[in-house]
Amino acid sequence: MSRKQIGVIGAGVCSSEARSLAEMVGREVAKRGAVLLCGGLGGVMEAAAFGAKQEGGITLGILPGTLREEANPWIELAVVSGMGHARNALIAQSSDALIAVNGEYGTLSEIALGLKMGKPVVVLESGWQIKGVYRAESPEEAVELAFRLIESCEKPEKSP
Amino acid sequence: MSRKQIGVIGAGVCSSEARSLAEMVGREVAKRGAVLLCGGLGGVMEAAAFGAKQEGGITLGILPGTLREEANPWIELAVVSGMGHARNALIAQSSDALIAVNGEYGTLSEIALGLKMGKPVVVLESGWQIKGVYRAESPEEAVELAFRLIESCEKPEKSP
Amino acid sequence: MSRKQIGVIGAGVCSSEARSLAEMVGREVAKRGAVLLCGGLGGVMEAAAFGAKQEGGITLGILPGTLREEANPWIELAVVSGMGHARNALIAQSSDALIAVNGEYGTLSEIALGLKMGKPVVVLESGWQIKGVYRAESPEEAVELAFRLIESCEKPEKSP
Amino acid sequence: MSRKQIGVIGAGVCSSEARSLAEMVGREVAKRGAVLLCGGLGGVMEAAAFGAKQEGGITLGILPGTLREEANPWIELAVVSGMGHARNALIAQSSDALIAVNGEYGTLSEIALGLKMGKPVVVLESGWQIKGVYRAESPEEAVELAFRLIESCEKPEKSP
Repeated sequence: MSRKQIGVIGAGVCSSEARSLAEMVGREVAKRGAVLLCGGLGGVMEAAAFGAKQEGGITLGILPGTLREEANPWIELAVVSGMGHARNALIAQSSDALIAVNGEYGTLSEIALGLKMGKPVVVLESGWQIKGVYRAESPEEAVELAFRLIESCEKPEKSP
Repeated sequence: MSRKQIGVIGAGVCSSEARSLAEMVGREVAKRGAVLLCGGLGGVMEAAAFGAKQEGGITLGILPGTLREEANPWIELAVVSGMGHARNALIAQSSDALIAVNGEYGTLSEIALGLKMGKPVVVLESGWQIKGVYRAESPEEAVELAFRLIESCEKPEKSP
Repeated sequence: MSRKQIGVIGAGVCSSEARSLAEMVGREVAKRGAVLLCGGLGGVMEAAAFGAKQEGGITLGILPGTLREEANPWIELAVVSGMGHARNALIAQSSDALIAVNGEYGTLSEIALGLKMGKPVVVLESGWQIKGVYRAESPEEAVELAFRLIESCEKPEKSP
Repeated sequence: MSRKQIGVIGAGVCSSEARSLAEMVGREVAKRGAVLLCGGLGGVMEAAAFGAKQEGGITLGILPGTLREEANPWIELAVVSGMGHARNALIAQSSDALIAVNGEYGTLSEIALGLKMGKPVVVLESGWQIKGVYRAESPEEAVELAFRLIESCEKPEKSP
């Protein structure tokens, strides 16, 4: 009954190009029946949640503040953490895989936490290129790769 | 697009009577289109989530540990907090109202945090009777009361 | 090298009587060489920290917000948690014993979390009388009792 | 009354060279009367705390787990967070400046969080070279630089 959860991470303010990429990622995640998990705010988070809702998906936002009203309009379920930046660890830990659409230091902290926790991390585009992340050239490739990596994590024999 | 979220709190190990009550609460929450939010583990949490799923509802569990596998089988979306007891604050803060089905010290901490945050807290049965909580005699009454209290919180004129 | 840590909990705004009691608790804690741990803000927390510093003790505040400037002037070391109410769990978990000087719902949540974690909890005065807490009639008795309870926890044979 | 707090971050298992560097950083921090703040475990954290205690300094560890016994022997005060990796945000937020002595993904997450929060971050040696960090060639230089950066943060005119 439990659904796969794909965390989409990136800046709260972003270019229209990044928005388009994030929206496409959100659509692909929803098409595969997975939950779109994000930080619940604007920019990349909002575009990804919008994309997921366009395809009838479920969206879950883990907000840094104490007010649910801070969520973008496409967040259906919200965790109002009130924990500030410490909520980044919850996003990483609750995701079966992370997909980063550019982003700044906050995104980097999520990538690092994801890698520390052994989660597959796919970086779309010209984002942070830390050893251990997987690169994807398009939203479709990023989501496809994320799902393949999750599967290989679940198999008894470990993939690289 | 955002859904109401009702937190159901109570012990992880409980009597069959408490299970029945929690299941009924979960059913009522789902019938009204709200999200069943809980701590994701056994006992009251599991019964409430089971009830919600029987009615086609959505369930969200905020787990204390680092493994999603610790969630009960009726949890559809999970936040894997890895925060231990500190996650109780997230349950309280993410709920529009809390309904307590008996429970021990963990539940008391959630009731206290909910009251501190100004959330409506309904206590079903012979649970913790702290000043500031509302009592209900049945699951139906508890859910009905929770929704009425949420509405009155949202209105410009404050209810007691 | 590690020091005993006594958590003093209570309201951020309080009567002058409560302040006197908290200050005496802080003095007693420091006289015994233990760290005075608290939430770092005003009222009971400030009075206890003031008392500890009068006796040359060390004070540690676990702040809810993101600014160290919010600490009262008697806090020597501060954890700037940025976690809001969820920091209450850190206070309970980091204390070898808790002493409550009255207080409201926030204090109740800390008492409940402390009991859940198996910590000795001493309630001074007319505060929350939850099953499982120990009562003390004076600050001296409260601190004396807290230290005795810590010792008995550490012994192989468990005390009640 | 409040003391400066310098966070020293790095791997829990490390080379003897990294240990020497961390110990020297800890000594320098203590000589200047600042608190040595760290994650409380082994490797770089232990060496830094050992160094600080050799100079009579105060050490504060923010532990990821629920047991104070997990702290290294040089930790005088401990916050037992029980929050796992989310405690990295508390280390970053509670430090006036961060000094990184190599380290892996956990350290990278702390660097990123520190930068996000606007803290001065000094990286000693061949560690993570993220844009925005300051480099130092020796422990003395790292601590000297950290203190200078803290001062310039506190002045009305912002330094780069």
